[in-house]
Amino acid sequence: MKDSRRDFLKKGVLAGVGALMIPELAKAVVHEQQSVSASKITLKKDAVILMQGDSITDAGRTHGNNSCNTQEQLGFGYSLYIATQLLAKYANKQLKIYNRGISGNKVFELRDRWEMECLAFQPDVLSILIGVNDYWHTLGGGYKGTAEIYENDYRALLKYTKEKSPNTQFVICEPFALTGGSAIENERWFPMFDEYRTIAKKLASEFKAVFVPFQSGFDAAMKQAPARYWAYDGVHPGLPGRQLMANMWLEATGL
Amino acid sequence: MKDSRRDFLKKGVLAGVGALMIPELAKAVVHEQQSVSASKITLKKDAVILMQGDSITDAGRTHGNNSCNTQEQLGFGYSLYIATQLLAKYANKQLKIYNRGISGNKVFELRDRWEMECLAFQPDVLSILIGVNDYWHTLGGGYKGTAEIYENDYRALLKYTKEKSPNTQFVICEPFALTGGSAIENERWFPMFDEYRTIAKKLASEFKAVFVPFQSGFDAAMKQAPARYWAYDGVHPGLPGRQLMANMWLEATGL
Repeated sequence: MKDSRRDFLKKGVLAGVGALMIPELAKAVVHEQQSVSASKITLKKDAVILMQGDSITDAGRTHGNNSCNTQEQLGFGYSLYIATQLLAKYANKQLKIYNRGISGNKVFELRDRWEMECLAFQPDVLSILIGVNDYWHTLGGGYKGTAEIYENDYRALLKYTKEKSPNTQFVICEPFALTGGSAIENERWFPMFDEYRTIAKKLASEFKAVFVPFQSGFDAAMKQAPARYWAYDGVHPGLPGRQLMANMWLEATGL
Repeated sequence: MKDSRRDFLKKGVLAGVGALMIPELAKAVVHEQQSVSASKITLKKDAVILMQGDSITDAGRTHGNNSCNTQEQLGFGYSLYIATQLLAKYANKQLKIYNRGISGNKVFELRDRWEMECLAFQPDVLSILIGVNDYWHTLGGGYKGTAEIYENDYRALLKYTKEKSPNTQFVICEPFALTGGSAIENERWFPMFDEYRTIAKKLASEFKAVFVPFQSGFDAAMKQAPARYWAYDGVHPGLPGRQLMANMWLEATGL
């Protein structure tokens, strides 16, 4: 009952959003989903920004390339579009933007490589998008994780990061799955997958992180074009989906 | 005298622009350089947009790929950032965006391949960025072209296109060269290269095309970061320069 009331309210508030064009839609969805007191990111000169996650973040980047701010190391995904906008907008800040997403990663696999591929960067801003594989891989391939394991591992990772790097500002991105994408069989995904989204949002609130409501953004965008326009398989965004994600990320962080 | 007065006025008007961040800077420069009555682009459903030019447009695209709207065929340059924003913003229009820039091209080389690589597309919007090689290649390699040849060839190309495809809307982009870039020796480039920019602007006016003042945009941006930040060699933009170009193109076209 509580859930269906939430769905009703959500549909009510977002009902008109589908008629907006993407830049305004991104703005409207972020404002609807964020609390008034949501943190925004501040960027000092020479700030290090680290993008972390799975294949959606990895997005074809060249592994083993240690430079920052290059096409090769940023890959082809939403991180590229965020980076390019930040590098242009804050040209005088000499930002250093890194991508260390790895395809297939679940939250415990981030932990396995966290010393070298997060803490060593001493990031001023750490953006994480993780969770779709934590559910997806339970559907085949024998992964036995649960939403509870995802929550506990994710919380421990954030807690550890905060201890080791107390000035790092967190951006927690909502994992998403698009109904109608070729890899998304609705009855196998929903409502089970929604738990992972709820957990990411809860952790954002616990850690006073910026929360980027990607699922809500895609849900609204799907009123304009079908799931496969935004992300053919429902998981990995194509060009329009990458731009939508960048718009939402920039809006949510206030950058 | 008239020129130095114009320079003075221009410096006056653009003096504060360097203090703006890139999205607002792009807006300010475009509005300063465009006449009030400048055309804007209208996009119908299923519109075909064709990006034409030299290496700045080519930008590593996969040649022989005939699809539209893909990373591979759009390459890594400003066309990608324009396309991605248009595909997201006008999701319900089913746009078809093509890139047919070829590295090294001068305006007469566009003409050589115009039937198959422009007219055959029946573009609703045709964006052309050409001219840097028309000057650059006279500095070595034995090309004997002049500004007059560039002007005559370019005018003939536009006239021919208008005859064959009267409903095509033109976007004429200003060629540019960044003082301080590794390939730009000032005394060999200026003021001779400025003629090519003036010609592109004059032709935009003659053909009632949208004019995108890239040189002015880069000149203003160089108050925030040096030439090599925007385009290392002064000719081929890096990520921040590509984003600046996309911002200016979208602002100038009103898209």
